[in-house]
Amino acid sequence: MKNLLIIGAGRSATVLIDYILEQARQHNFFITVADADIALAQKKTGDHPNGRAVWLDAAKPNDRRELIARHDVVVSMLPPQMHLEVAIDCIALGKHLVTASYVSKQVFSLSDEARQRALVFMNELGLDPGIDHMSAMQRINEIRAKGGKITAFHSYTGGLVAPESDDNPWHYKFSWNPRNVVLAGQGTAQFLEDGKLKYIPYRRLFRQYRLVDVPGMGAWEVYANRDSLLYREAYGLNDIKTLFRGTIRHRGFCDAWNALVRIGLTDATFPIVNSDQLTYHDLMEAFLGISQHTGSVRDRIAKLIECDPDGPVMQKLDWLGLFSKRRIKVKDATPALILEKLLLEKWALLPEDKDMVIMQHEFEYELDGRNRKLTSTLVMKGNNGVDTAMSRLVGLPLGIFVKLLMLGKISTTGVSIPTMPEVYEPVMQELELLGVRFVETEE
Amino acid sequence: MKNLLIIGAGRSATVLIDYILEQARQHNFFITVADADIALAQKKTGDHPNGRAVWLDAAKPNDRRELIARHDVVVSMLPPQMHLEVAIDCIALGKHLVTASYVSKQVFSLSDEARQRALVFMNELGLDPGIDHMSAMQRINEIRAKGGKITAFHSYTGGLVAPESDDNPWHYKFSWNPRNVVLAGQGTAQFLEDGKLKYIPYRRLFRQYRLVDVPGMGAWEVYANRDSLLYREAYGLNDIKTLFRGTIRHRGFCDAWNALVRIGLTDATFPIVNSDQLTYHDLMEAFLGISQHTGSVRDRIAKLIECDPDGPVMQKLDWLGLFSKRRIKVKDATPALILEKLLLEKWALLPEDKDMVIMQHEFEYELDGRNRKLTSTLVMKGNNGVDTAMSRLVGLPLGIFVKLLMLGKISTTGVSIPTMPEVYEPVMQELELLGVRFVETEE
Repeated sequence: MKNLLIIGAGRSATVLIDYILEQARQHNFFITVADADIALAQKKTGDHPNGRAVWLDAAKPNDRRELIARHDVVVSMLPPQMHLEVAIDCIALGKHLVTASYVSKQVFSLSDEARQRALVFMNELGLDPGIDHMSAMQRINEIRAKGGKITAFHSYTGGLVAPESDDNPWHYKFSWNPRNVVLAGQGTAQFLEDGKLKYIPYRRLFRQYRLVDVPGMGAWEVYANRDSLLYREAYGLNDIKTLFRGTIRHRGFCDAWNALVRIGLTDATFPIVNSDQLTYHDLMEAFLGISQHTGSVRDRIAKLIECDPDGPVMQKLDWLGLFSKRRIKVKDATPALILEKLLLEKWALLPEDKDMVIMQHEFEYELDGRNRKLTSTLVMKGNNGVDTAMSRLVGLPLGIFVKLLMLGKISTTGVSIPTMPEVYEPVMQELELLGVRFVETEE
Repeated sequence: MKNLLIIGAGRSATVLIDYILEQARQHNFFITVADADIALAQKKTGDHPNGRAVWLDAAKPNDRRELIARHDVVVSMLPPQMHLEVAIDCIALGKHLVTASYVSKQVFSLSDEARQRALVFMNELGLDPGIDHMSAMQRINEIRAKGGKITAFHSYTGGLVAPESDDNPWHYKFSWNPRNVVLAGQGTAQFLEDGKLKYIPYRRLFRQYRLVDVPGMGAWEVYANRDSLLYREAYGLNDIKTLFRGTIRHRGFCDAWNALVRIGLTDATFPIVNSDQLTYHDLMEAFLGISQHTGSVRDRIAKLIECDPDGPVMQKLDWLGLFSKRRIKVKDATPALILEKLLLEKWALLPEDKDMVIMQHEFEYELDGRNRKLTSTLVMKGNNGVDTAMSRLVGLPLGIFVKLLMLGKISTTGVSIPTMPEVYEPVMQELELLGVRFVETEE
């Protein structure tokens, strides 16, 4: 296998393209980067002799298929809802497919066909999902190999701002999709605790956070992810008593975010009529009940959300400018979209800013009649606002896996996620050489 | 115009079909009822000489168009998302179209084309939307004709159970779509109060209800609908200071429904893994936080939602069987779907039960320098669990309008809702003869 097609040259593809071009000469790979923005694709391939940029509107089936037909392996960096069409093409044309996205039911339903054609369809090869699977499975299989029985597994991940670039009272900046941050947690979080199912509805999610100690980094807040239960089967942890996945935030974040939720600013279901004719102050006032007539809007909001008017939560709302007479810029927008646009300004990662990713797994297990605890922690900082830890941790696993696949070192066919040793061992090993190191402590 | 096609013979089409068949001989109408369930369509047309039933899979464009082509007027009783395709057919084939559903943006975009072809595309011709538009516009235009200036408009509607059939502690039974009842209010309710915009997010909606006096019926609870602001333009009330639409419920309902919302039972976004392996008791226990360890599940839930364990809210939850060890019957269902299936059993309108619809408009207006208030109230009860007030109030306006249209009495072309006198005057007049009477009081 020599010819790789990367569809989509956006921001999240940069590290993958750089990595695989660096490997190309040695292994005689030829890489095509296809995008509807040809200038963007050209910028990413540069003048590398083994790389070329082509124009592609991925929504046009004929163009897409013609291009796929001329390659051995396809990486789809398209929006997730477009992977299915690419996957169907890859089945028809007999090509391997790699993505960083969650496997949809539709893509999963192609697994038997892919296997029959000896095709590798590997997904969830970024950070979360991606490195979380691989680093956890590595530890899980080590513990099992020693004869240990895992009773509890906690796993936490956060895309954060590095302390040296942390200069706002929320202690947060965007290193990834802002929309996902604004809508985070809507639904019902599900996990296992001491053998019991636990559900946390959205309205209590940011109140029921827990404090987690990260070695060398102090305590952080963690709120539950929606999907912990799904990992029972994926990781083969069928008898486990406690299984919890969560998102890491700086101390003080959850209380303040909960205030935004309580006011009503994260609703994404119904647009505010003529929202562009309002100020943020008008918007806040409109959320007050008709009986709340005394005092300033700010004081009445503090009362509504049961917060000290001089306390840290209200200070965070002040800093966002939620009580200012500035005009809202988006028309007929949902509260969530209005909030997203505001946060995009306020929480922008500036060119000189460094982001930081923290991932921590905690395993409790029984071995030789004794209870033990293993904590495995990754802390990684970016170099600047473009070369972020987040983009490296999403792009590198993809790049390393694609290299292994092109070199014929992957035998797992069908639709999969990277939970098998032939994937996670070499990927994690090379990641470590590239500076992605989990530090372990045993109790 | 002689030939009417009714697509969809479901429960909501019965009154329309009965009404129009009754009119058919006199006016020489021929009515085709089309449904994928031919037996159902046959049952509805019976052996009426002017009616016939045909089989139609409405999702098949060719069959659908062939049938539409042979008629003058089409009534679509299909699910709302299918109206667009029927509307496009009607444009192409030059046929009039009538529905009881909200006008979607896509259907509205066909308005110019319909007008150019002199076609009537009338929608929102049921109860709410439907009779609400017509009865409100009638009053609004009467007040204006007298020289009055409307300053406030409140409008409330409820599909309820009649007092004589009210035998459960919730004082509620389903007379219409249960799913809409379970998901009611998700989003942000918007209205105007004293010239100020007001938003109520879902989390406060059932707490911030108001009490409304219905003449002769005592006080009822009303929670805000999402869409009040949309009626400013539709009714030409651009200078109005207060505009509020709401849903009527029996006293005690909102507090208890708010308890279900607080627990987390109305979330429809994320399925509970293996929900069919749980009991209702398990489900309730899973919603408790991990720190809430003392006492029975019922007591801990009461504490979680801050309710008196012996009070009326907990009694309503008991009556639903939410703390019973009965198995949940639906697999991988969202909390909202689990709740819907439970309520379907508990709140079923039995064959001998009577439903009741209440609609009340309150207009405040200035006339000759004095402030006045007009209250216009409809209270209507059904005969039994099949011949419901709800089904009559949805079906009769459709039937009367279709008759007027077939008799050539409608001149308003394009996509519309029934806010014009040529529609609401004759429809409301005939509705009154059929027992649909608004009672008015002036202050």
